[in-house]
Amino acid sequence: MMTMRVAIIGVGQTKMGEHWEKSLRDLSTAAGALALKDAGISASDIDGLYIGNMSAGRFVGQEHLGALAVDQAGLTPIPATRCEAACASGALAFRKAYLAILSGHHDMVMVGGAEKMTDLKATGSVGTLMGAGDQEWESSIGLTFTGLYALMANVYMRKFGLTREELALIPVKNHGHGVNNPYAQFRFPVSVQDVLNSALVADPLRLLDCSPITDGAAAVVLATENVAKRFDNPIWIAGSGQASDTLALHGREEMHRVRAAEYAAKTAYAQAGLGPDDIDVAEVHDCFSIAEVMAYEDLGFAPRGKGKDLLINKDTTIGGRIPVNTDGGLKVGHPVGATGIKQIIEIVRQLKALAPNQVKGAKIGLAHNVGGSGATALVHILRSD
Amino acid sequence: MMTMRVAIIGVGQTKMGEHWEKSLRDLSTAAGALALKDAGISASDIDGLYIGNMSAGRFVGQEHLGALAVDQAGLTPIPATRCEAACASGALAFRKAYLAILSGHHDMVMVGGAEKMTDLKATGSVGTLMGAGDQEWESSIGLTFTGLYALMANVYMRKFGLTREELALIPVKNHGHGVNNPYAQFRFPVSVQDVLNSALVADPLRLLDCSPITDGAAAVVLATENVAKRFDNPIWIAGSGQASDTLALHGREEMHRVRAAEYAAKTAYAQAGLGPDDIDVAEVHDCFSIAEVMAYEDLGFAPRGKGKDLLINKDTTIGGRIPVNTDGGLKVGHPVGATGIKQIIEIVRQLKALAPNQVKGAKIGLAHNVGGSGATALVHILRSD
Repeated sequence: MMTMRVAIIGVGQTKMGEHWEKSLRDLSTAAGALALKDAGISASDIDGLYIGNMSAGRFVGQEHLGALAVDQAGLTPIPATRCEAACASGALAFRKAYLAILSGHHDMVMVGGAEKMTDLKATGSVGTLMGAGDQEWESSIGLTFTGLYALMANVYMRKFGLTREELALIPVKNHGHGVNNPYAQFRFPVSVQDVLNSALVADPLRLLDCSPITDGAAAVVLATENVAKRFDNPIWIAGSGQASDTLALHGREEMHRVRAAEYAAKTAYAQAGLGPDDIDVAEVHDCFSIAEVMAYEDLGFAPRGKGKDLLINKDTTIGGRIPVNTDGGLKVGHPVGATGIKQIIEIVRQLKALAPNQVKGAKIGLAHNVGGSGATALVHILRSD
Repeated sequence: MMTMRVAIIGVGQTKMGEHWEKSLRDLSTAAGALALKDAGISASDIDGLYIGNMSAGRFVGQEHLGALAVDQAGLTPIPATRCEAACASGALAFRKAYLAILSGHHDMVMVGGAEKMTDLKATGSVGTLMGAGDQEWESSIGLTFTGLYALMANVYMRKFGLTREELALIPVKNHGHGVNNPYAQFRFPVSVQDVLNSALVADPLRLLDCSPITDGAAAVVLATENVAKRFDNPIWIAGSGQASDTLALHGREEMHRVRAAEYAAKTAYAQAGLGPDDIDVAEVHDCFSIAEVMAYEDLGFAPRGKGKDLLINKDTTIGGRIPVNTDGGLKVGHPVGATGIKQIIEIVRQLKALAPNQVKGAKIGLAHNVGGSGATALVHILRSD
């Protein structure tokens, strides 16, 4: 294992929402330009580009996203790579850029994520998103992603006695945090009663349990230790973990946990020489409310079945022991391919004490990005020194 | 730059063609199993998986290809990554797997490519393939990929006086080579007259100038130098280059060359400490006949405008000075995401003296894989010692 360290030296993101007047290339370019500006560098300093995107082929009829991004940014002829692992595409691109720097073939890499979900050319967004699941065994029989997570929610709730009201504490917390996030698609608080009164999508999950359809892009600049030392306040990658599980939910022995996330966390903690108790702030993949409860346990923040205690005790709310989704999480915007990057950006802001919902003295943060119903998971641990 | 070497220790591929009774996962798994068998290892020896695929989201309604492949192969929970750069997705995945090993995070990685083009769920294959071009400026106005390469052919032929008959020597040579390739979709020879009599697709390109719509998968196993030493006859990666150009053809200053391929070749030659004269055998991306002529020049096998001399002198035919596309090239099968890997496999076979059209004493080979109309290009140089 290499001992060279890699740092994040700049970040940028667009507002998340419905960008009817902006294309996928407009959004990608805007995020990249903001990241360059934040780092105080020019495009010509970059020697490689990675982009995470799930389904632009279906959303906007465009594959070959690396070329799109590098061309629009005026960065040709540097190498450009698109990575895809459904909703984990952002963190996947981040990890591949990190490995590319560790390989010795790159010194300073732009890594972004982008998704334009509102310009549907082919099928609807629900059908397109099912490309993240198993086409032969899940989408072909009419399962939706809310359906898949509803199955997990039912298993979890029955097994551990989590109530519908307790589950509602996730969107209540995250919407509460999102009110202060200038990049959020939604900036309004919701109550437990609002969640319980919202439309039923797939029992027990209701509209306010679900992340939205979002356009958006986010980008960060990575650099080798030698390069990063010249910049103020680089944020270091302390650990990176990636793991896989069965593509179809029915292939798993247990449906109340995400094994890929457990493996990814284990790898990242081991590399960082840290454990769950060392984490000051975390961004976790709350595509549906139940996902955040499982994440608490997969990441070791709570024992199995006890995730709800963190909610009831407000441990994961700003001011609590380990604030989670301080920007509002996926609940206030989930531009699929960009999500893994915007999570990392929130952690960078927290570690630089620049976050709207600042966690006082945060030095170590974690980002957890999941693809599909848990077939891919990535965990990154960042630290400020 | 790291000095550790990385080797290919096993290869496997499916027959290329119309696989009406096999799915994308069947094809991927078959290729992977053959690569494991060739290496003489078991699945549990692998610690990472990369897969190149262009457009399964549109072809078969399936994204999240890394998870599909790793699940089907029984390799969970190891990390699995899909890479995409249109027709260069295979070589892109290969390079990312190579960098992953150099990073120190992996010791033995499976890297495959797969495409199932005949099971169209959404739009037609011509429309889907235009996802490799520029959706806003090319596909939206009705350009096809044959149209884009026809534009390049017209510019090239006018500039350098290449005749229609001379251009036909590419499919004549490649079909001639393909007759002996057991994995080829087409195994019949064609004459210059056959090419000239075949249906006009986009002037001046005719049906026999075009690569086909193909299902297929291919996979190789990469290992660190320390691991590879334990295997017979490892084939070493001597150089890897990747570069980008504008996504849309009209953005380029010149249309008679592929600048991204020139840059990628320059990088790969420099890393290998070799030049065009050192190459014993090459696989180049002949998606359309004109592409192979340009490749000769982009790779330095011929001076600019003189590519046709290699054809007239039979330099690139088996028995010539530098045989090109000894397996028949893309002309006898182009399973898009798999193409970059099956090129590398042909070079491995040549360097192990196992190719059906063997180049006597071949020690150094090159593979050249292009995405779209040249917005992405990758060049790899392999050697047997």
